[in-house]
Amino acid sequence: MSMKKKTSYLSLFRYLVSALFILVLTSESMLAQEASQELFTVNNTWMLVATFLVFIMHLGFACLESGLTQSKNTANILFKNTTIVAIGLVTYAFVGFNLMYPGDFSIGQFFGFAGFGLDPGVDGNTVAYADGAYTYWTDFIFQAMFAATGATIVSGAVAERIKLSSFLVFVTIFVALVYTIAGSWKWGGGWLDQMGFYDFAGSTLVHSVGGWGALAGVIVLGPRIGKYVDGRIKGIAGHSMPLAAIGVFLLWLGWFGFNGGSVLSADPELVSLVFVTTCLAAATGIIGAMLTSWFVQNKPDLSMVLNGMLAGLVGITAGADTVSVNAAMLIGLVAGIIVVGSVLLIDRAKLDDPVGAISVHLVCGIWGTLAVGIFSVNPDHSFVTQLIGVLSYGAFVFPAALVIFYGVKATLGLRVSEEEELRGLDVSEHGMKAYGG
Amino acid sequence: MSMKKKTSYLSLFRYLVSALFILVLTSESMLAQEASQELFTVNNTWMLVATFLVFIMHLGFACLESGLTQSKNTANILFKNTTIVAIGLVTYAFVGFNLMYPGDFSIGQFFGFAGFGLDPGVDGNTVAYADGAYTYWTDFIFQAMFAATGATIVSGAVAERIKLSSFLVFVTIFVALVYTIAGSWKWGGGWLDQMGFYDFAGSTLVHSVGGWGALAGVIVLGPRIGKYVDGRIKGIAGHSMPLAAIGVFLLWLGWFGFNGGSVLSADPELVSLVFVTTCLAAATGIIGAMLTSWFVQNKPDLSMVLNGMLAGLVGITAGADTVSVNAAMLIGLVAGIIVVGSVLLIDRAKLDDPVGAISVHLVCGIWGTLAVGIFSVNPDHSFVTQLIGVLSYGAFVFPAALVIFYGVKATLGLRVSEEEELRGLDVSEHGMKAYGG
Amino acid sequence: MSMKKKTSYLSLFRYLVSALFILVLTSESMLAQEASQELFTVNNTWMLVATFLVFIMHLGFACLESGLTQSKNTANILFKNTTIVAIGLVTYAFVGFNLMYPGDFSIGQFFGFAGFGLDPGVDGNTVAYADGAYTYWTDFIFQAMFAATGATIVSGAVAERIKLSSFLVFVTIFVALVYTIAGSWKWGGGWLDQMGFYDFAGSTLVHSVGGWGALAGVIVLGPRIGKYVDGRIKGIAGHSMPLAAIGVFLLWLGWFGFNGGSVLSADPELVSLVFVTTCLAAATGIIGAMLTSWFVQNKPDLSMVLNGMLAGLVGITAGADTVSVNAAMLIGLVAGIIVVGSVLLIDRAKLDDPVGAISVHLVCGIWGTLAVGIFSVNPDHSFVTQLIGVLSYGAFVFPAALVIFYGVKATLGLRVSEEEELRGLDVSEHGMKAYGG
Repeated sequence: MSMKKKTSYLSLFRYLVSALFILVLTSESMLAQEASQELFTVNNTWMLVATFLVFIMHLGFACLESGLTQSKNTANILFKNTTIVAIGLVTYAFVGFNLMYPGDFSIGQFFGFAGFGLDPGVDGNTVAYADGAYTYWTDFIFQAMFAATGATIVSGAVAERIKLSSFLVFVTIFVALVYTIAGSWKWGGGWLDQMGFYDFAGSTLVHSVGGWGALAGVIVLGPRIGKYVDGRIKGIAGHSMPLAAIGVFLLWLGWFGFNGGSVLSADPELVSLVFVTTCLAAATGIIGAMLTSWFVQNKPDLSMVLNGMLAGLVGITAGADTVSVNAAMLIGLVAGIIVVGSVLLIDRAKLDDPVGAISVHLVCGIWGTLAVGIFSVNPDHSFVTQLIGVLSYGAFVFPAALVIFYGVKATLGLRVSEEEELRGLDVSEHGMKAYGG
Repeated sequence: MSMKKKTSYLSLFRYLVSALFILVLTSESMLAQEASQELFTVNNTWMLVATFLVFIMHLGFACLESGLTQSKNTANILFKNTTIVAIGLVTYAFVGFNLMYPGDFSIGQFFGFAGFGLDPGVDGNTVAYADGAYTYWTDFIFQAMFAATGATIVSGAVAERIKLSSFLVFVTIFVALVYTIAGSWKWGGGWLDQMGFYDFAGSTLVHSVGGWGALAGVIVLGPRIGKYVDGRIKGIAGHSMPLAAIGVFLLWLGWFGFNGGSVLSADPELVSLVFVTTCLAAATGIIGAMLTSWFVQNKPDLSMVLNGMLAGLVGITAGADTVSVNAAMLIGLVAGIIVVGSVLLIDRAKLDDPVGAISVHLVCGIWGTLAVGIFSVNPDHSFVTQLIGVLSYGAFVFPAALVIFYGVKATLGLRVSEEEELRGLDVSEHGMKAYGG
Repeated sequence: MSMKKKTSYLSLFRYLVSALFILVLTSESMLAQEASQELFTVNNTWMLVATFLVFIMHLGFACLESGLTQSKNTANILFKNTTIVAIGLVTYAFVGFNLMYPGDFSIGQFFGFAGFGLDPGVDGNTVAYADGAYTYWTDFIFQAMFAATGATIVSGAVAERIKLSSFLVFVTIFVALVYTIAGSWKWGGGWLDQMGFYDFAGSTLVHSVGGWGALAGVIVLGPRIGKYVDGRIKGIAGHSMPLAAIGVFLLWLGWFGFNGGSVLSADPELVSLVFVTTCLAAATGIIGAMLTSWFVQNKPDLSMVLNGMLAGLVGITAGADTVSVNAAMLIGLVAGIIVVGSVLLIDRAKLDDPVGAISVHLVCGIWGTLAVGIFSVNPDHSFVTQLIGVLSYGAFVFPAALVIFYGVKATLGLRVSEEEELRGLDVSEHGMKAYGG
C-alpha cells in the first residue's frame, strides 16, 4: 500500500467529515428556519384574529352608547361611531403609527416621529419585523384598531348634545396626536417604559386616556337639558337595553383580542392565562356590581351590571398577564363595586355622562393600573411607579383634551342649539330618524 | 509513518464519528421538540378561538330568549343571562372544573373531586398539560364557557314568571354541582365513558342536561298567566324577531367553537369535517323545520325555522366527528322535523316553554345522542349504550333539578306574584324598563 | 498491522459514513414532513377561522336588509336570509362545489361538472388536498359559505314585494347553477383565468354576480307601491338604523375572512397586507360617502355612510392582495363617492332597490375589478382583460337571472298581491308580526 493511497484515504476521510458537518449544520439551520417560519405564521395568525376581535369592539361601543341614550339621538351616535373607526384608521396610517412607535425619540423620551405614511411596498421587507413574531402590516393594523377605541370612549360621554362636525374635529386631533404621543411614553419605549411603568394592554394607555378625554368633554359641554333641574338629578333612561347588552357582550368578545393580542404572540401559556384572568375579572365585575347595586339601589340594575362587566374588563387590562387568577377575581370584584359608586357620585357631582364612560374607563382604568402595583407577581412592578404613570397620563391628556375642546368651542362651536337638542340630533344633524314605520 | 500517528488518526476518526452522531441526534431531538412546540401553539390557539366562540353563545341565548318573550320582561332576561355567565365561570373556577375532571373518582366512577380552586400559579407547569395539546388555563376556560351554556338553557324555559333571586340560587347549584357531576361520567372518564357511551360535544352532556333542568322548571313553575285559558292554548308572541334571529345566528357562530373546539386540537381533518357536518346539519334543520311548518301550520313560521337551525345543531353535536356528511344532513333534517312537532306537542301538553328550550335542547339532544348509535362510522358505538347514556342522564338530572326547584320554592319562593308577573319583571324585579323614549 | 485489519477499518469507515448520511437525510426528511404538518395545521386553522367569519356575513345581510326596510316585512326578510344560507350550503354540497371546481371542463373552458355530492368518507384522503394548505372539507365549507353570500345580495333588492316561494325557487337555481358556472370561469381555472383575468376575492365573482341578479329582479318585479308616485320619488325609510348598523359592522367583520381567507393560506405577509388594504378601503369608503353625502344631500346621511363602508369593502375585494396601501385608500375613497351618486341615480331611474344592493355590489364590484387593472403592482394584470371579465360576467349572469325571474313569474307568479304588499309580507306570507307586545 503506497503512502499516496493512504493519504488519499485520509483526504477522503477529511473531506467526508467536513461534508457531513456542513450537511448536518445546513439541515439544522434550514429546519430551524422552517420551524421559526411556522411559529411566525401561528403568531401572526393569532395577532390577526386579535385584530378582528378588537375591531368588533367598535360595534360594541356603537350598540352600548346608542342603547343607553334616547332614540332621538341614535342615528347620530351610530354615525359618530362609524366615522370614528374610519378617522382612527386613516390618521393612524398617516401619522399615528409613526408617532406612537417612533423608533427614536427627538424630544427627550417624550416625543418622536418616524415620518408620514406607511411603508408603501406591497411586499416590502416586513417578514423580519418584530423578531419574527408578526409582520409590519399586522403590527400596524392591530395597533390602529386600538387607537380608534381610545377615541370612541369619549363619544359616549358627550352624546346627545355635541355638534357632529365639532366632535369629528376633536376626534381627529385627539386620536392622531394625543393618544399616540401619550402611548409612545410606554408602548413606544419612552420615559415611562424606561422607568418600569407597566400597562399590559391599556388600562391607562387606552381606557384612562379615553376617560380623561371624556371627562374634559363633559366639563366643557355641560349637562344635557333636563338632566339636573332645580338641583335635582333626573334620570334620562336609555332607549334600548337589548342594544346595550349586545354592546357589552361584543366588548367582552373584543377583549379576548384586546388583552389576548397584547401578548404580541400566540405564546400558549401567556395567552391562555390572559384569557382566564380577563374572563374571571369580567365575571366578578358583574357580581360585584350586582351585589352593590342590589344593596345600594335596592333593586339590581341591569345597566349597572353591564357596566360592572366592563369595569372588571378595564380593571384587569393593565395586569392580565402578571397577576394570579385569584388576584384577577379580586381586581374585577373591586372594579364592579367601584363602578356603581362612581356612576352615582359622578352624577351627584352634576357631571352628565350618559353612558358612564368616565366611571368605567377612567376610574376603573386607574384602579387597574394601580392594582398591578399591588398584585403583580413580578417584583419589578411598583405601586409608586404605577401611580406616577397614572398621574402623568392625567397631567398630559386631560389638559390637552380641554385645550382641544375649548379651541373647537371657540371656533366651530361645540354644542347644538337648545332647539336642536330637544328635537334630537338625528333630525337636526342628519335629517333622518333612526326608527321608522 | 509511526504506529502512534496511525492510532491518532483512528482516534480522531472515532472521535469525529461520535461527535457527528451526537450532533445529528441532538439537532434532531431539538428540532423535534421545536416542532412539537409549534403544533402545541397552533392547537392551543385554536382552542382559545373556540373558547371565544363558545362565549358568544351567551349573547346568542340572551338575544334569542329576550326576542321570543314580551318586552316587559326583556331587562330581566338580559340580567339573568349576564349574571349566569358570571356565576358559571366563578363556580367553575371554585368547584366545577375539579368536579367534572376529578382525575380520580372517589365514589365508584360516579363522583370525584380534585379540591377547591385553580392552580394559582401565574406560570405553573401548565405547558405539559393534555399531552401538549393545550395549557391548563386553556382547558379550564374552554370548559368553563361550556358549563355556563348548560345553565342558560334553563333560563329561557322559565322566563317571564320566575323570581330573580330564586333563579340565581337554582343556577348556582345546578351549574356548580349537577352539570359538573353528570359531566364527569363521560368527559371526566367516569362510568359511562368506560362503558363506551359517546357524546362528542354535548348533545346529552350539555343540551339534554340543560333541557332536563328546563323541563323540571316548567313543571314546578306552571304556565304563565293567560297562556292556557279555559283549556285553550293562547299564543304569547315574542316582542322582537330581529333579536331572536340575531340570537340564533350567534348561536350557530358559537357552534363552530362548541363542536370545532371539542376536537380538543386543531387536527385539520377532524376540525374541518366537524365544520362541514355541523353546518350541513344546521342547514337541513332549517329546511326540515321550514317544510314541516309550511305543511303543518300552513304558513312557514320564522320562529320554527330559527328553532330548526338550533335543532339541527343540537342534533349533530353528539356525533359531529363520527358520521358521514350525508348522515349529518339526515340527522339535521330529522331534528328540524322533530322540533316543530315537539314544540306543538309540548304546548298541547300545557307545558309552557316560552322559547322552545325543551324541544330544541332536550328532545333534539336525545335524538342526536341516539343518532350516533345509528349513523356512526365507528363500530364501537352502539345504539343500546347511547340509550343507556340518555336514560342515565335523565334519571339523574331531572330529579336533581326537581329537588333544587322544590327546595328553592319551599324556602325563597319560586314565582313572582300575579301582580308582578302582569306588570312585567323589568319593573317589578329591576325597577326599570328595557325600552325607553 | 495486517492488511485485513486496515481493510476492516476502511470498511467500518465507509459503513459509518453511509450510515451517517442516511441518518442525516432521514432526519431531515422526517422533520421537513413534520414541519409541513405544522404549516398545514396553521393554514387549515386560518381557513376555518375565515369560514366562520364569512358565515357571520349572513347575519350581517339579514340585519342590514331588515333594518333598511319597513317593520311589516321584517320577519319575511329574516326568514329569507335564514333559508338562503341553508339552500346555499345544501345545493353547494349536492352540485355547486363540483360545478365551480370541476377539475376538467367538458364544454370548452366554460362548463364542467365533477359529479353529484361530496366525498362521503369521514376520513377520506383529504389531507393531501390543495398542496397541503388545507383539507378537502375546509375547501368545501369555505367556498360554500361564499356561495350563499352571492344569493343573499339579491334578497335585499327585491325585498318588500317578492313572493316567498318564488324567491326561494329563484335562489335555488341562481346559487346552484348561475353563481357556480360563472365562478368556474375564473376560480375553477376556466377561460377567464387562462386569459389572465384577476379577481382576488370576488368583486366580480361574488358581488357583481349578486348585483346582476339584483338588477334583474328589480326590473322584472317593478317598484314597491308608493315608491314612485306621479313621477316623484318618495322615500320609504327603513325601520331600524341600529339593525342596519349592526349589519354593516358584521359584514366588515366577515370581510376579514372573505378577503383574508382568499389568500387560501395563513401566509403572514399576504394575509396581513390584505387586512390592511381591506380595512383602509372600508375607512376611506366611509369618509368618501360622508363627504359626498354632506356635500350633495346637505346633511350627512347615516345609511349613505354605512353603504360607503360596504362600497369600500366591495371595491377592494378584487385587488386586496395586489395593490399598495395608498392605492387601497384611493380605491375605497372613490367607491364611497361612487356609491352615493349611484344610489341617487338608480333611484332617479326608477329602479327601486330598497337597500342599495345594486350600487354597492354591482357598481362598486365593477369599479373594484377595473381598479385592479389600474393599480395592481403585478404587471400581468391589464385593464382590458379586467374589462373583458366584467363584461363577460354581465353578459352571462344578467340574462340568466332575467330568464329565471321571468320563468318563475310565468309559472308561480313573482309578486305578492297589492293587498298583501300593503299589509306587509310578515302577516300575508308568515301569519305573524316581527315586533310584539
